[in-house]
Amino acid sequence: MTAETPIVEMHPQRWGDPAAATDLPASARGLVELAFGLQDRPATTGATPPASALADALLDGLRAIVGTEHVLVDDQTRTLRTRGKSTPDLLRARAGDLSDAPDAVVRPDGHGEVAAVLAWAHEHRVAVVPFGGGTCVTGGLAARRDGFAGLVSLDLVRMKRLLAVDEVSMTATLQPGLRGPEAEALLAGHGLTLGHYPQSFEHASIGGFAATRSSGQSSAGYGRFDAMVVGLTAATPTGPLDLGSSPANAAGPDLRQLLLGSEGAFGVITSVTLRVRRAPAVATYEGWCWPSFDAGSDAMRTLAQSGLLPTVIRLSDESETAVNLADPTSIGGTDDPGCLMITGYEGTAEQVAARRAAVTAVLGDLGGTALGEEPGRTWVHGRFGAPYLRDSLLDHGVLVETLETATFWSNRERLHADVRTALQESLGEGSLVLCHVSHVYETGCSLYFTVAARQADDPLAQWQVAKAAASDAIVAAGATITHHHAVGTDHKPWLAREIGDAGVRMLRAVKAEVDPAGILNPGVLIP
Amino acid sequence: MTAETPIVEMHPQRWGDPAAATDLPASARGLVELAFGLQDRPATTGATPPASALADALLDGLRAIVGTEHVLVDDQTRTLRTRGKSTPDLLRARAGDLSDAPDAVVRPDGHGEVAAVLAWAHEHRVAVVPFGGGTCVTGGLAARRDGFAGLVSLDLVRMKRLLAVDEVSMTATLQPGLRGPEAEALLAGHGLTLGHYPQSFEHASIGGFAATRSSGQSSAGYGRFDAMVVGLTAATPTGPLDLGSSPANAAGPDLRQLLLGSEGAFGVITSVTLRVRRAPAVATYEGWCWPSFDAGSDAMRTLAQSGLLPTVIRLSDESETAVNLADPTSIGGTDDPGCLMITGYEGTAEQVAARRAAVTAVLGDLGGTALGEEPGRTWVHGRFGAPYLRDSLLDHGVLVETLETATFWSNRERLHADVRTALQESLGEGSLVLCHVSHVYETGCSLYFTVAARQADDPLAQWQVAKAAASDAIVAAGATITHHHAVGTDHKPWLAREIGDAGVRMLRAVKAEVDPAGILNPGVLIP
Repeated sequence: MTAETPIVEMHPQRWGDPAAATDLPASARGLVELAFGLQDRPATTGATPPASALADALLDGLRAIVGTEHVLVDDQTRTLRTRGKSTPDLLRARAGDLSDAPDAVVRPDGHGEVAAVLAWAHEHRVAVVPFGGGTCVTGGLAARRDGFAGLVSLDLVRMKRLLAVDEVSMTATLQPGLRGPEAEALLAGHGLTLGHYPQSFEHASIGGFAATRSSGQSSAGYGRFDAMVVGLTAATPTGPLDLGSSPANAAGPDLRQLLLGSEGAFGVITSVTLRVRRAPAVATYEGWCWPSFDAGSDAMRTLAQSGLLPTVIRLSDESETAVNLADPTSIGGTDDPGCLMITGYEGTAEQVAARRAAVTAVLGDLGGTALGEEPGRTWVHGRFGAPYLRDSLLDHGVLVETLETATFWSNRERLHADVRTALQESLGEGSLVLCHVSHVYETGCSLYFTVAARQADDPLAQWQVAKAAASDAIVAAGATITHHHAVGTDHKPWLAREIGDAGVRMLRAVKAEVDPAGILNPGVLIP
Repeated sequence: MTAETPIVEMHPQRWGDPAAATDLPASARGLVELAFGLQDRPATTGATPPASALADALLDGLRAIVGTEHVLVDDQTRTLRTRGKSTPDLLRARAGDLSDAPDAVVRPDGHGEVAAVLAWAHEHRVAVVPFGGGTCVTGGLAARRDGFAGLVSLDLVRMKRLLAVDEVSMTATLQPGLRGPEAEALLAGHGLTLGHYPQSFEHASIGGFAATRSSGQSSAGYGRFDAMVVGLTAATPTGPLDLGSSPANAAGPDLRQLLLGSEGAFGVITSVTLRVRRAPAVATYEGWCWPSFDAGSDAMRTLAQSGLLPTVIRLSDESETAVNLADPTSIGGTDDPGCLMITGYEGTAEQVAARRAAVTAVLGDLGGTALGEEPGRTWVHGRFGAPYLRDSLLDHGVLVETLETATFWSNRERLHADVRTALQESLGEGSLVLCHVSHVYETGCSLYFTVAARQADDPLAQWQVAKAAASDAIVAAGATITHHHAVGTDHKPWLAREIGDAGVRMLRAVKAEVDPAGILNPGVLIP
């Protein structure tokens, strides 16, 4: 845990620590008022969750496994483990709806206790929702409870150890409950880093990164989280899994890739062995300006296909760039701001100098305009900040949410246009649809959309209609329903279209085998 | 198909075209005689397979699907589709044992015909063995037939099209029956390459590369075959699979990774979409000498962990280097030859120059001695040649076989020692156990062993004892039973130990779901 990023319990109605939330900056307030009008939409306070449905006698079984002090049924603890952090989740909590609260929160320590909790849940038909950082934005923490005796939140908060470091192989084995900064602090003690910095970094957990195939802002340099995983252990209701005999092999299908992205539906990940890197001596970020999103995207593609990626590379489209410019700490001031790209380099001084020179030459040749380090500093400063602003916007009656997808390069332009159109048409005139590319591959890239609109009377329904329109457009364009936010409950219908009937049947077959009573995160992931 | 590497039917008792086989070079003959004594162990000739067990009336169903001319029951065709190319496979064929011959060879063209053949086989309980290049060395083409009405070889020889090229996304979609040189020739028409060159390159097929997670000699630069796959289609007895919405995503478990390595047990891969690269303008290979296997391995590790790998990097241990030196076209002539490393660079002239300079600086600093391009030329010239030499050695009573594994860097030394010891002790004094590293990752590497011993009266039993000892040593050391040869039937018992009970149950569950009658490659892969 680093001094700069204290780990705090997340407020059920907001992102992170309410004390860390900032009201709208004065400069933005005027813009927001102009764009959406300022409404006063305060969150309901004082709501309490339904009484626990689990009888005290039943909970004695859990207490025998983890100790009495680690089976919690008080309202506050259950409230803090209710749902995740999507805008729909926040809207429900703000309306005082805590109907998805777990009946109990259980905090096992270690693989053995997790396995015993699952055996107990299997025996008593109690649904189990694994809980790491609670930052899910796709409904993955709101399991179905009908058909079950109750629902417990399996909180991994006690499993925060660095179990092993192998500095020869450059791997580290971590427990799943470590949040981003906690994991980095432990690794920093060995001069190592994961280099995994999603926007949820401050709160999200190692287990969650693995279970949802997270991807961080430095993915161009450090890779996606799933690409870092060389081994894992998991507890299932029918026995343990211990995978990872080698970096890569031909010993049948790669079962690690079946647990990665399984969102707690196949088992609870109890340790993850990750490829680590030396902590960078130098980190520098800078800005580039492109005449268009197409030109900037083509430059990203050229870099990716030349094996010349920086550690960080992001590109905002025209709309997102223009909105960013409304922030006076950002670049610019011209009438046609073009598209802002952020490039970042991390490593030894030598590595950074060499890569920066090579990338700069390519980007200059392709028509980019170097903007220096100021835009880079601004981006780094605010890189984890956007979700806090969302809370303030919700308070003021502005609906804000994000969604993301990925596709092959030749389909990028169509996907961008189709999703933009779907969102814009659904949310109506005056709504904002912004987009950036934040993850690139040789063969394609992600597209990350942010929308803002004046809240309708029923903002939840308003968003669900827009989200369905965007999801339909994504699947119709042949793209993925999620590049790094995972499936949860929100994306299930579109996952079924993406992987087809045989794909769905394969997932169901694995689920039925390892979790025959279906207690693990019921209703999540599997269509 | 290139002029230099004609595609020919493989001889059941030998590797590739018998006309391409060379007898032992005179220089090697003396060495072999000295080491093992020269025996005369000619292959049995004139053996014929058992009569087809499939009634003509039953085959009419197949004929209706693919056309009469593509259902073959003649002895020669069935002989050519019998088993693969492991030394045990060759020994059985050389002894006149064709008991594993298929009852018929069926040659569908396209996904629809493959699906129809599987439906026919499902209905009539006929086992199906997908057949690409026939180069399997782990018993993956010798399916169990008991409990089935018969066994057909599903020959993909007619599915040899380049279905699509996307030069923006740098992907190509290929049919599974294309052999290595055929695929490269089609891609070369677009200035593209896969860069996938396993030793089986001349004969093995695209579908086989995918189904077995093949890895080529240029894996340091181009990646493993599974890392090239961005999409695939497959036919199963219960419906089609079409996977690959994006380069990477978080849409649940990566089901592509469940088909990759499935060795025909889950479905027949009917197309593969692969990341491609521009064909290199420059390719250059050179030699380095290291004082020890440890020193050379550490240098490989340093390169991999610095992001500075060449396109090709291989390192022979002391024994393999010494035996290579017995070939007068190879390097050297000193008493202590050390360990030979081959490094290769492919790309644009600029890329090659930059990478070569960077690697050369690191290797020089770490104590390597540059040997110039001659060892590189020798290696390139002979890179696909070893299996042809095996045939001559078998003729002369020398047992030759290979096996391979992979592990994390910190376990490399132990694994090398343990497997060497197991093989040496099993095969006895006078046997040769050679090893090289041919695939490296940030976190570990492969170890590839070649053994040669004087054939005992029953060479098959002789090898099975040695192979079991080596496999036990591999699993005991926590390494993988196969880095790139796949599981087949030979590795099944050790796969079960590697992935554990829950892992085996997951594979069985998927199999039961997509292939409820169990007709797909029965007895292969799944313990």
